[in-house]
Parts: sequence; structure tokens; C-alpha cells
Amino acid sequence: MKIQTAEVVVCSPGRNFVTLVLTTDDGLVGVGDATVNGRELAVASYLRDHVAPLLIGRDAHAIEDTWQYLYRGVYWRRGPITMAAIAAVDTALWDLKGQAAGLPLYQLLGGRSRTGIRAYGHAQGQSVGALVDSVHALQEQGFTAVRVQVSTPGLGPGYGVPEQAQIGLYEPARSGAAPAEELWDAGPYLRNMPKVFDSLRSAFGPELSILHDVHHRLTPIQAARLGKSLEEYDPFWLEDLTPAENQQAFRLIRQHTTVPLATGEIFNTVFDYLTLFSEQLIDYARSAVTHAGGITGLKRILELASIHQIKSAIHGPTDISPIGLGAALHLDAAIHNFGIQEFMQHVDSTYDVFDVGYTFEHGQFQPGERPGHGVRFDIEAAKRFPYRQAYLPVSRLLDGTVHDW
Amino acid sequence: MKIQTAEVVVCSPGRNFVTLVLTTDDGLVGVGDATVNGRELAVASYLRDHVAPLLIGRDAHAIEDTWQYLYRGVYWRRGPITMAAIAAVDTALWDLKGQAAGLPLYQLLGGRSRTGIRAYGHAQGQSVGALVDSVHALQEQGFTAVRVQVSTPGLGPGYGVPEQAQIGLYEPARSGAAPAEELWDAGPYLRNMPKVFDSLRSAFGPELSILHDVHHRLTPIQAARLGKSLEEYDPFWLEDLTPAENQQAFRLIRQHTTVPLATGEIFNTVFDYLTLFSEQLIDYARSAVTHAGGITGLKRILELASIHQIKSAIHGPTDISPIGLGAALHLDAAIHNFGIQEFMQHVDSTYDVFDVGYTFEHGQFQPGERPGHGVRFDIEAAKRFPYRQAYLPVSRLLDGTVHDW
Amino acid sequence: MKIQTAEVVVCSPGRNFVTLVLTTDDGLVGVGDATVNGRELAVASYLRDHVAPLLIGRDAHAIEDTWQYLYRGVYWRRGPITMAAIAAVDTALWDLKGQAAGLPLYQLLGGRSRTGIRAYGHAQGQSVGALVDSVHALQEQGFTAVRVQVSTPGLGPGYGVPEQAQIGLYEPARSGAAPAEELWDAGPYLRNMPKVFDSLRSAFGPELSILHDVHHRLTPIQAARLGKSLEEYDPFWLEDLTPAENQQAFRLIRQHTTVPLATGEIFNTVFDYLTLFSEQLIDYARSAVTHAGGITGLKRILELASIHQIKSAIHGPTDISPIGLGAALHLDAAIHNFGIQEFMQHVDSTYDVFDVGYTFEHGQFQPGERPGHGVRFDIEAAKRFPYRQAYLPVSRLLDGTVHDW
Amino acid sequence: MKIQTAEVVVCSPGRNFVTLVLTTDDGLVGVGDATVNGRELAVASYLRDHVAPLLIGRDAHAIEDTWQYLYRGVYWRRGPITMAAIAAVDTALWDLKGQAAGLPLYQLLGGRSRTGIRAYGHAQGQSVGALVDSVHALQEQGFTAVRVQVSTPGLGPGYGVPEQAQIGLYEPARSGAAPAEELWDAGPYLRNMPKVFDSLRSAFGPELSILHDVHHRLTPIQAARLGKSLEEYDPFWLEDLTPAENQQAFRLIRQHTTVPLATGEIFNTVFDYLTLFSEQLIDYARSAVTHAGGITGLKRILELASIHQIKSAIHGPTDISPIGLGAALHLDAAIHNFGIQEFMQHVDSTYDVFDVGYTFEHGQFQPGERPGHGVRFDIEAAKRFPYRQAYLPVSRLLDGTVHDW
Repeated sequence: MKIQTAEVVVCSPGRNFVTLVLTTDDGLVGVGDATVNGRELAVASYLRDHVAPLLIGRDAHAIEDTWQYLYRGVYWRRGPITMAAIAAVDTALWDLKGQAAGLPLYQLLGGRSRTGIRAYGHAQGQSVGALVDSVHALQEQGFTAVRVQVSTPGLGPGYGVPEQAQIGLYEPARSGAAPAEELWDAGPYLRNMPKVFDSLRSAFGPELSILHDVHHRLTPIQAARLGKSLEEYDPFWLEDLTPAENQQAFRLIRQHTTVPLATGEIFNTVFDYLTLFSEQLIDYARSAVTHAGGITGLKRILELASIHQIKSAIHGPTDISPIGLGAALHLDAAIHNFGIQEFMQHVDSTYDVFDVGYTFEHGQFQPGERPGHGVRFDIEAAKRFPYRQAYLPVSRLLDGTVHDW
Repeated sequence: MKIQTAEVVVCSPGRNFVTLVLTTDDGLVGVGDATVNGRELAVASYLRDHVAPLLIGRDAHAIEDTWQYLYRGVYWRRGPITMAAIAAVDTALWDLKGQAAGLPLYQLLGGRSRTGIRAYGHAQGQSVGALVDSVHALQEQGFTAVRVQVSTPGLGPGYGVPEQAQIGLYEPARSGAAPAEELWDAGPYLRNMPKVFDSLRSAFGPELSILHDVHHRLTPIQAARLGKSLEEYDPFWLEDLTPAENQQAFRLIRQHTTVPLATGEIFNTVFDYLTLFSEQLIDYARSAVTHAGGITGLKRILELASIHQIKSAIHGPTDISPIGLGAALHLDAAIHNFGIQEFMQHVDSTYDVFDVGYTFEHGQFQPGERPGHGVRFDIEAAKRFPYRQAYLPVSRLLDGTVHDW
Repeated sequence: MKIQTAEVVVCSPGRNFVTLVLTTDDGLVGVGDATVNGRELAVASYLRDHVAPLLIGRDAHAIEDTWQYLYRGVYWRRGPITMAAIAAVDTALWDLKGQAAGLPLYQLLGGRSRTGIRAYGHAQGQSVGALVDSVHALQEQGFTAVRVQVSTPGLGPGYGVPEQAQIGLYEPARSGAAPAEELWDAGPYLRNMPKVFDSLRSAFGPELSILHDVHHRLTPIQAARLGKSLEEYDPFWLEDLTPAENQQAFRLIRQHTTVPLATGEIFNTVFDYLTLFSEQLIDYARSAVTHAGGITGLKRILELASIHQIKSAIHGPTDISPIGLGAALHLDAAIHNFGIQEFMQHVDSTYDVFDVGYTFEHGQFQPGERPGHGVRFDIEAAKRFPYRQAYLPVSRLLDGTVHDW
Repeated sequence: MKIQTAEVVVCSPGRNFVTLVLTTDDGLVGVGDATVNGRELAVASYLRDHVAPLLIGRDAHAIEDTWQYLYRGVYWRRGPITMAAIAAVDTALWDLKGQAAGLPLYQLLGGRSRTGIRAYGHAQGQSVGALVDSVHALQEQGFTAVRVQVSTPGLGPGYGVPEQAQIGLYEPARSGAAPAEELWDAGPYLRNMPKVFDSLRSAFGPELSILHDVHHRLTPIQAARLGKSLEEYDPFWLEDLTPAENQQAFRLIRQHTTVPLATGEIFNTVFDYLTLFSEQLIDYARSAVTHAGGITGLKRILELASIHQIKSAIHGPTDISPIGLGAALHLDAAIHNFGIQEFMQHVDSTYDVFDVGYTFEHGQFQPGERPGHGVRFDIEAAKRFPYRQAYLPVSRLLDGTVHDW
């Protein structure tokens, strides 16, 4: 089974996606996701101009060899662009292998370890009242776990909250010539959150799994304080409390709170987690198949996590294409240390291009029984949705200092 | 001083380079290097498609703000493509600031800390005899420090050694549709190197500074063994003994040998060095201006190094364009903890496009007195040298396993 | 640009200042602050008798070389007198370089990273009522962050509180032949402070940033207790909780409280912070340009801080001359990890000698657009204000034991 | 017993000294040494202008209170100038207390713990032959321990070696308007030292205690290498292998060698040693009475050292005045963890001003039986030897970079 063609497609059915399409000499088609939100064309160039020529004629079965060839062979290893490109190749190759075997991907990854894949949805509101409504709506869809984001008074809608409530349709990347700029101030945020959690527990009782994403905006000691102040409300987790390049910063947070911690959606190799895992500093590893070197790369991360009793929580917002999500669901089904899966609904036009095999019911996913990862890509449909320049927002402090978004 | 245009040029005067050209509303032109060897078009796309539009109209003086805007603002931070793109912007902005101030860049970085910048050249040979000749040739050029690479019997020319001896002109990246593949076997290499060093010390006596690059090919315990076995020959350093994503691996090496260690040419942020520096695991930090976020990014790394008595040894082979080298020389001149500068001569056609202000004599560089970094880029000349696909080689073990090149 | 003259001036326009005035052969004048409160003549002698002769004829552009020459060259390195002398030289040289470049100093330090520099003022009162009035007065001046100091019942006015309320004009150093002596007892202080914070939050609500300075007077476990007891009142920071020569003492405090911690106003090199930073034991680094080796020395400290997400909070009471404050404001404007700037208004006569380029409005500073740091020194005016012996107070416990002031 | 006068005298009988003379209301005269080599007038100003006024009328018996009053009371604590000033006061007070008690100082410090105080002398030579002669000469004077310093080929005389061999009279500080500049290059030094030690062991056999001072010039890994390479020659110690502000650097050295290590002559408080002691990183603590806060300050350091089985090796070159040396000898006699005492003979004119009570015979000192520390200062004689500007040399690398002297 040799790779015959490798095509990179950038399309925008609702938002931008980068898709790699591999065909083999025996007529199979495998697809992988390489979307890096806001830097789509760079990763497309990386794949098209530098990687695709290397794939033609290679044995499509040799996934590990190809992964190492691209990781070690490029010399300039790691980083979001490189690892997303490798991810797309790896995902497409696993898709092909599944098809060649006539088996859904999860069977190749060790078989099914659970009956369904619990997912959490995104609730949000400019007020606590609107947030409560949003949670109710998710519960009605079957979710038993929800991520809650609410505007901080005086700081605009804020991360995770749309200008107008569009439940489940919030899209952080915005089209245009430059990123939107948002304000951030930790003071009112830290004062507000305990009240928010208090209201949520009053409204929903103790059983709902409540997640919250801080999106890298606190210093380590602020993060520690937030953990302490929310502990009594039993969050399922607090996510991305502080920028995590400095992994040692989590030691301080960990001294002060037993709130479960999640991080890693912007990580792309196992080395980004080495201190966090070996010192038990987090509880959930959040990398995406799409960003962390594909099935092969992410499985490597989650294997190490399992040794430290750390669970998976694969990144899954809309900038992960249905291919990236579909691949993730097979991994979720197969690994032992599954924790939870993030889910943010794509808009309808996305499904005009991506035909998915996975299903969602009662708050749980099934990866589906199609061979491979089961998500098919319609190149002709994709052409109807050309790339549109879009950027994630940028954060600034009140005095104009650039802050972590 | 506002940025008016931002143009990205990929040219190949002898080899491929990616250059960013910024102009300001008061007519200044600043240039930066973003070359990532073998992935040139990806970083060009990153700059042209995603970064350039954000630069137009920005204050060219606001270097730190722009650096943070691109680093934190992209969300998907770190990695070779991202940090090379930031490097090009940062270098061009420092070039502009120097011109605005009417001062050579080293004056803005704290002024001159030394009279000249010692550089090491590359010697190589398929045999020890040829290597000795190559070292002699470098000594005649004034070098007092040489990096020595020699073929391991049975493994072909090997890293750093050309097919035919082209002293000073070896170019690892080769044009073509795919990387060359080289063989690697640690056993004969480890047995051979003590003999090589013994011959070199016999030929050149104790005073020559002899450097050697292992290029990431040993395991930590092999690396420790090599260090022990070469210690009596007093190497100036051993470089890249083992892949350094796992910084903790250097603890093992460090327990066994006092040979000075250098690493970091594939690192791109200070976080890649955090454990290596804080535990005193290396002696020279080898990142390039071009790959580690520019003057701003590399100065951040070298400041932390200085606190731990670790010295600079800025990466400087031919895939660093004269702009990247010129900028490095200003940093070399200004910082206190300068160690040594790598130098690999560009071919003549490179200088048709890049007009340099720096000079080299008696084994030492001078950064030159032109305002800014002093390297000028001739866009028209560049057009005469279109991009040619080229790749760095890939290594394989004798059984075909992909290995670190 | 060679240094032609180096003159040291001690003057007392309202309080004592030590100023270094450098002139160059091309007619520029650069000035630096070397004031060490209560030891002014010693640092003046250090500069005049030992350092000034070494400066004549040196290249004024060679700032890093001169810094290292004075730091390493003296052999007996570190300490407040040495580092203040170096600071004055370094600040004057950066002033000269800015003038030579025709740029305000912040442009040489990387350009502007924010629109304005938030400062905190000093509020105080012998009673909580008086303290509340003092805070109101600062709010009227535009401050959104205030440091609150209040008398502890039975212990006299105490640190930071004048005999009679002179809002904004409290001067701890007092003229005379010997230091004033103040009483200290941790017991009533620890019992009092939660009530004070409770009153302040009742009076001002949750949004005001409230800072408090313990001025080194608690043991580590007392400090930990104070942190815990004030946590619910959300202090912006607690400062100098315990003498910090023993950096490890902060581990104990840090285990018990998530209150943000500030320290370092009596530190003078990066080595004073090494454990505090690397173990994430504090949140704000408080050294002054004047005491920590100038722009070069303090920037070195703050770069290391930034890697650990620790922010700046440059020391800025009246014993920092307008030159020291002006230079600090340029650093504040340029660095990314700015936190807040201390500000204590100088008396009018100070401005008869120091002509400042910086401005203060709405609780924020602007460093100003004059070339260099922008603070000019009128030597003739200075002569009208001769040095007057003055000392900072000394603390004693109730039994007469000398305590940390 | 109240202090009646406090006079500071700077004199230069052979070299510069700073002496504090205290008299009491009952007619006693106590003297202390505050010499900081190359910064004499600054510490004289510190004492005369800021400290002396505080001493008049104080109880001369209250040594601990006065020490804390000056250390904590100044607020800007630590550093060479401050701690030398405190040292002079402390030494003079102990001198007075001894006289008041009619007892030699060692009796007040706990009484005699040994019969004599072993000292090491300084041997040096521009060649190994000259060094051997110098060692022989010291042996003839009775020394059983010698510090050996030899010129490194190509680098001039170097540290510790006079232009012309003047055994026992080498004076590093040189009169003149600026420091002498010396060259340093670690390469030839590291290659030379094993040969030097080999020659010495051949010439003198295994029993001679051979000490060597590296004077802060190596990086940590170079230091580790030197330790390994000299280990077989059984050095008594290697001193100041690397700049020790970064105490953690000694961890690396300590991994590689069991050579005993000495450091600390430029330290001035116990906090400079905290990591070095608590992690057993050195074997000898080398601070001077004169620089580390006097008898009280140094005893505090040596008490902590004793807990870690680290021994004393009090700094004793000519810039420690006979008062500083005399005081040290009493401490040497009394403490349990005495190691060795450094001794460098003063020139004859020094003894015209300082009348010493201590004696030296058979390689050992006796502190003498005069009350107090037993060294008397002749103010009238001192006036005949006015201060002469002098500096310690500065080191530069071959490329002009300032290096640690």
C-alpha cells in the first residue's frame, strides 16, 4: 500500500480548516486534520511544499517510521506548525490502515475500553442568569458535564462568551485583517468567580460536573487563590490556570488547592508535560490529535499520563475539524485512562464538507463503526468554501500591556 | 516611526534564505532573517499570510510589545516556525531602531564588551589525515578554534563531512525532491573518536581549541561514555550529545564527565533551557538569533544563562543568512557572557544579495559601524536567485530505523 | 563619545540626594542617582574617590563593559553602597546613550509596552478613620492603588505613619544626630490588621487595590499567619513580611497563603532573588534602579522574574531622587512584566534642583519624550541645599531588643 | 564604660589601612580594622560620617546590641562596605571588653581550644623552578602548609605572582590612578596545573599541605575538571574555584571531585554561605574578621559551619591590617572548628604603626596574652603615612572581556 497522492486543502465551511488527503495505489483515501487556528496557510505550506513530496511512494502502513521521519528528520522539531503537519499525516495514515483492515480505528488502537465517551459542552453567559439558562440547554441535550464561562463585570463579554448569546455557536476566531482585542483584569475576575460558582451550585445541586477555563490569564499565585476560593464548590476541573511553558509554576498552585487541574491544549509534544506529569502537578492532559502529532503523538502523551494516573481530556472546539474530533473519539474509546472529551458543535455548513461517522446521544459519543476514523472529506464541496483570513483575539491589560489570551 | 510595508522574500543565492523587509513612513528599511532550513516556504507563509498584515501601521519602535503580541497573541506559541517568524520581525525592528538612532546595533544592546568576536570554523575529513589538512587550512585563515568532524569507518562521509573535501564550503542541505539518507551506528563512532582526538592533539598540540558536534545521535549513557573517553584530550566542548527535549537526560551525562557541553541550536525559547540552566547542566547555549525569537528572544535566553555562568555560542552555519549572522555579531559584541561564535562561510553568490557590514580577520569578527545591524538586502538581486527545494539529510541506523540526524 | 568629567553632588532640597553628573567630549550631560538613605556620604565617597577617576576617558557607549568593570573589577562585589555607585554610573550612561541617539530611554529598552504606568500612593493614619481619609485623598488624586499603613494601638505612630497626618509628605528619614527609635510588638499588630482591612473593604468596596507593607518585622510563621488572616480581604500584596536574606523562609509563608507577596527593596543583585524566583516564592520584585545596579542591573533582575511570571514593582519613595524615579519609569514603560510603580511625592524644593520630564495624571505616569531618561539636574541650584545629617529610624521591641525597622 | 570618642584613621604604612579608634570614659582605647582594599575612603566615610556619631555615649560593653543596631538599623544591610564598617566597631568593642576584663580576647570567646594556630604561607614563581624555591623558603620559616601560585605560560606573571620574585612581599594592590589589567585564559591554565602539582609532589613528597587559589576565574565545569585533574596530587584545598554568588554552582563541582574546597573571602554575611553549608558544598569558610562584621559576625558564620563539619580558614593577606589578623588569631584559638589561618607578612613599615602582641614560630601563631586582641595602633606614627590611591588589578580575557580577578 503505497501513497500515490498527497493533497492539502484549505477551506472555510463556517470556519477555516486545513485537511490533508492521501490516496494510495490501491485506491484508498485517508484524511487528516492540520488546522492551526489563525495560522492555517503556514501549516498548509509546511505540508504542501515540504512534506507532501516526501510522502509519495512511501509505504502507507509504515506509520511509526513516517512519524519519526518527519519529527526527527526535519531537524527543527516541535512547535505547533510542525506537529500539526505531522498530525495530519499520521491521522490520514491511521485512517488508511483502518480501511485496509476493514476495521474502525479504535479496534486498531487496542479495542473498545468503554461503552460510550462522555463529553462536556460549553455554557456561557454575559450574566449568571444567562449562564444558568445556557447550562439548562446543555442538560436538555444530555450533557452531564458543562464548561461554564461568564463575563466579568466591566471587561466586556470576555473569553468564551459571545457578543450575543448563541448557545453552542460561539466562535472565538474572527474574520478580518487583524485580531480583535479584549480586556483583561484579574482583580474583578477573581472576586466574581466564587459568586458564579455559588449560584451554579444553588441552581444545579452537587451532581453536575462543572468545568471552568481560565485560559492562561492568571499568575501562579492568583491561580492558587482561585483554586482555594472555588474548592468548596467542587469544580470538575480548572483549566489552563497560568501559562504552562514554565511547568514549575504548577508546584505553587498544587500546594494550595486540591481542585483538579487540566492543561495542555497548546502543548504539542510529551516534553511539554514532563515535569507536570512526573511531579503529579495536573490531572487532565488536554492536547488535541490535531496539534500533538496525531494519533501516534497523542497516544504517546497519554501513555505517560496513565503511568501517573492522569486522564485524557482531548481538546475539541470548532477549530478541531470533524476529522480531528473523529480521530480523537477512537482514541477516547480505546485508551484505559480516558477522562472526558471536549465538544463544541460545528455549524451546519461544516458538515456539508465533512461527513462524520461518529454520533452523539445522551451526553456521550460513539466513534462509529466505519473503517478508519470514519470521517470523510468532500473535496468538491470544500472548494465552495474558500479560506477567509481570521485571527484569534488578543488580550490586553487595562494599561495596554499584551496579555495571554 | 510607523511600519509602512512588510515584504517576505525567499531567494536562493547559493542556498535558500527567507528575508523580511520592513519599510517605515520615514523611509527607513529594516531587514530580518527567518530561514528555517528545509521549511523555508512554511515560515514565509507564516510571515506573509498571517504576520505581515498585522505589522502595517504599527509603531516600529515598540519592539517588546510587538514581540509579545506575536508570541502570546498567536495563542499557539513556541516552535521553530513561529519563533523564526518572530525573529525576523524583531531583527528588522532592531535594525530600524539602530538606524533611527544613528547607532550600530551593539550600542543599543549595551555597547561593546570586547575588542573582537572569536569564531570557530568547520574542519572535516573522510580520514584523520584529511581532517588534519582541513584544520591546517583553517589555522591559515586565522582560526584558533575549530570544529572537527570525521567520517566513521564503514558509515560513509557522515555528518559534517562532504563527499569531496570542500574546506569551508560543506553544505548539509541538498537540493532535490527528498532528503539524502545517511547511516549511523554508535559503536564504531564511540571507538573511533578517542583515536581521532589523540591524532589531533599529536598534530596540533594542546593549545588549539577543538570542538566536536555529536549532532544528537547518542543516548545519555553513550554520551556520558564519550565525554569520559575524550576528557584527556581537552575538547573545547562536545555539542548536542543527545536529543535535548528531555533536558533531564543531561543530568546523567553531567555526573560522568567534566567535558564542557554545548547544546541548543534547535531550541527556540528560554523554556527549552530552564532545567539545563538552573541545574548547571550545560556550558554553552547555542540558539540562533534567527530561530529563537530574534535579538529580544535570544538576549532573554542569554541573560538567564549569564546568571548560571553559561556562555553564548550562537549558531552560525550557512543556513543563518548574513542578516542572522550580522545581528548575532552585535549581540556577541555587547553581552558579557560571550563564549564563541560559529562561522561557516557563505558562498560568493550569497554576498551578491546580502551586503554585509561585518568583517572577519585573524579568527575574529567585527560587527561593523553601520547603523542598525548593518546588513543590507538587495531585493532586485534576490529575484535572480529563485527558491530551490532542498532538504537536510535524514539518519538511519543499520537496520533502517530512523535516527536523529 | 568619551567621558570627560565625573562629578558627585550631595544636596538636600527637602532631603538628601547623591547625584553623579557625567559630561562627554561632545558636550552631553548624563546624570544618575546614587542615594542610599542615611549613608549618602559613603556612597558619594565611593563614587568620587574610587570610581570617578576610572571613568574619565572611557567610552560612554560601553555600558555593559563599564558595569562589569565596576562589579567584577572591584573584587568586593555586591552590597548597597557598591551597587548604588554602579547604578549611578549606569543610569548616567543610559541617559547619555539616549541623548546620543536622540531617543527617550524607553525606546532603547525595547519601546513602549503600555499606554501608562500605574502607580500606588501611600495612605496612612494613626487611626482607621484617619487612614480612610488618607485613602480618599489619594483617590481624589487619581490613584486606584494605595499602600495602607496604620498605627498599632499602644505602639506610637509606627512605620509609615507621620506624627501628624501629612498626606503624601511623610518622610521616614529624620534630620539629627541619631536615628529616632520606634517600638514594635507583633502581637497587637497581628490582631489589629484584620480589623483594619475589614474596615477598609467596608469603606471602599472590593475594587480598590490595597497594598500593605510589613517592613520585615515578622518571623516566617507570623508572616504566614498574617497572610492567612488577611486573605479574605483580597490585598493586592503584602510586602516585606520577613527579613529576606534568608530566602528559604518564604517557603513557609508560601505554604500557608495565596496572598500575593512583594519583596526586594533592600536587595541589590539578582543573586538576592535566585531562590525566591526559581521556587515561585514571591509575586513582585521591588528593587530600585538606584540600588540594584541601575538600568542594566535591574533589567537583569526583571528578565529573570519574567520567566517565572513575577512582576516588577520598582521601589519609589522620596529617597529615590527624581533621576532614579525617572529612569525607573522608562523601564516600567518598556518591559513586558510590569506590575506597578511605587510613588511618594517629593517636596517642591526637590523640583528646584531636578527638572523632570515625566508626568503624573489619573494615577498613571508617563516617562516623557525627552531624550535619555529626561531628568535634568541643576548643579547651581543644588548648591543652595547643602547636605544635612539624617537617619532612618530604628525599631526596638518592648524589652529594648533591636528589631528590623 | 561609655564610648567617648570614635576616630577613623586612613594611613598607608606600606599599603592602605582603615582603622577605627574608640576611647571610653574610663580611658581605654580599642581599635578595629575596616580596610576594604581599593575602596578605603568609602568605608572611612561610612564610619566617620554615618556611624561614629551614633557611637558616642553608647555602652561599650553592649556589643551584640550595637552590632544589630548597625546591621538592622541601617536598613540597607549587607555588602562589603557596610560589613567592614560594622566589623571595625565590633572588633574595637571586643578589644575594649578584653581590656576591661584584663583578659586576652580568646579567653572571652570561650578560652583556648588548641596549643597553636597553624598558618599557611604564600609561595609563588614565574616558573615551577622558582615556585619550588619559594616553597623551600617557606619551609625554612617553619611552614608546613603553603599556597602555591605560578604563572601560566603566555599570560604574564598572573594572580599571586610578583613581577620579580619577592618572597612573602607580593602586594596585589598597586598605587596609581587606575587598576592594572591582567590577562586570563582558562585553557593554558587548566593544562598547566596538573604538571605543576606533579612537580611539587615530586619535589616535596606527600606530606606537605599544598593549597591553591583559583581566584574565581573558572566556570563551574572548568572548576570540576580542575578538581578531577588535581585529585591524585592530594591538594589540601582548592580555593575560590568559581564566582560564588551563585552558590548552586558548587553542586556541579562537588559531583566530580573529592578535593577539599574553600571559598568565602569576598563574602560578608552568613547568608552568603547558606546553600554552600547546608548542602555540604565546601570544606573551609574563608571570610575575614575585617570584612564579615567583626568577631561577632564571623563567629556567627563559623558556628553554622561547625554544625556542618566545615572548618575555618580566615582570610589573612596584607590588606587585613595587623588588627584584623590579631583579632582573627584569638578567634582561631578559641573556636572548636579551626582549620588553618592564612598569613602574608606585612612590610616593616606596617609594624611602625601597628604594635602586635601575636607571635609566629614553627609555622604556628600564638595570639599573645595582652588584654583584648593585643594589637595597638600608633596614631601619631600613622600620620606619617598618608593614604595613597591604589587599586586591585582587573582581569580581562584575551578578547578584552572583563573577567573576574
